[in-house]
Amino acid sequence: MKNRIITISREFGSGGRTIGKKVATELNIPCYDSELIDKIAKESGFTAEYVQENEENNAGGYLSFLCNRAFSLNNEDYLWKVQCRVIWEIAEKESCVIVGRCADYILRDIADCLRVFIYADEVFRAKRIVKIYGERAESPAQRIKDKDKRRAAYHRFYTDMKWGYAQNYDINLNSGTLGIEKCVKIIKELY
Amino acid sequence: MKNRIITISREFGSGGRTIGKKVATELNIPCYDSELIDKIAKESGFTAEYVQENEENNAGGYLSFLCNRAFSLNNEDYLWKVQCRVIWEIAEKESCVIVGRCADYILRDIADCLRVFIYADEVFRAKRIVKIYGERAESPAQRIKDKDKRRAAYHRFYTDMKWGYAQNYDINLNSGTLGIEKCVKIIKELY
Repeated sequence: MKNRIITISREFGSGGRTIGKKVATELNIPCYDSELIDKIAKESGFTAEYVQENEENNAGGYLSFLCNRAFSLNNEDYLWKVQCRVIWEIAEKESCVIVGRCADYILRDIADCLRVFIYADEVFRAKRIVKIYGERAESPAQRIKDKDKRRAAYHRFYTDMKWGYAQNYDINLNSGTLGIEKCVKIIKELY
Repeated sequence: MKNRIITISREFGSGGRTIGKKVATELNIPCYDSELIDKIAKESGFTAEYVQENEENNAGGYLSFLCNRAFSLNNEDYLWKVQCRVIWEIAEKESCVIVGRCADYILRDIADCLRVFIYADEVFRAKRIVKIYGERAESPAQRIKDKDKRRAAYHRFYTDMKWGYAQNYDINLNSGTLGIEKCVKIIKELY
């Protein structure tokens, strides 16, 4: 596999998706984010909404485990298998940026990856999510806590790695203190 | 305080010290590493060896606590106070690179710092410590484990922050996968 892949893991509200898209545009390579979800949806037969939510639901929840896993492959496990196949195919096909979906883990040992983690302090993220996704009944702090918890549980369940632990990545960037543009520049130059 | 400070925290054997020195040379600013130890030694009255070892001893050990801390300021606490003062003075005086000694924490909120963490996988670090410090009776893996454990305990005790946790820094760089020179370039350009 000769393609170079940039995988971006990110805390909710840190701007990781924006950074991924900008890097891809500047490098003139595709960025798989919602496109990835569409592909997984198409291949799995689930709706894009279900696939999207799956990453943010606790796949390793006990109820899910008791209800499904004891008897056969459950929806989440099936989706995970499709997700792996789709990501392998993308990486085989072309150099690109992949945002989220444990791509760093799925491509370990088989692709030339630059593994990036984007994070920021809560104040920065709270402002950003209100600006981008609007106000909600829950406070921004609560929304951040919920999303991060779900993403971390999902990542942990399928990869057995601690989400957001620096050692899992080649580079970890604080978008709050460095700014989105500097993060883009660093990743682009490293590529 | 108008000076810009680069603080470098690093895992043992990751090349953090080398990176700090190279960045400082290229930016034409001083790098405080052994110079810092000498300054702390001079101001505290302890030997440089004692100051050096202090960072790698578990300052928060229970025995030390029971023996000293219950009655008065012990050696480690006194040394910590001197260390804070020396680092504040350096940051007040000039722009520079400071390696280790919790400078990121000591300068929080009072200086314009770029807080860097350098890490690498064990294979890279093991090779590096044998090359730089030579063979020892203990295996490189054991030496890494011991040093990291001591540094983490020291950092944790005085800062109440988890050592090596990405969120504590502006940028975290894997010197094993990126290479020393790329780390130097990224930090230099961010400065």
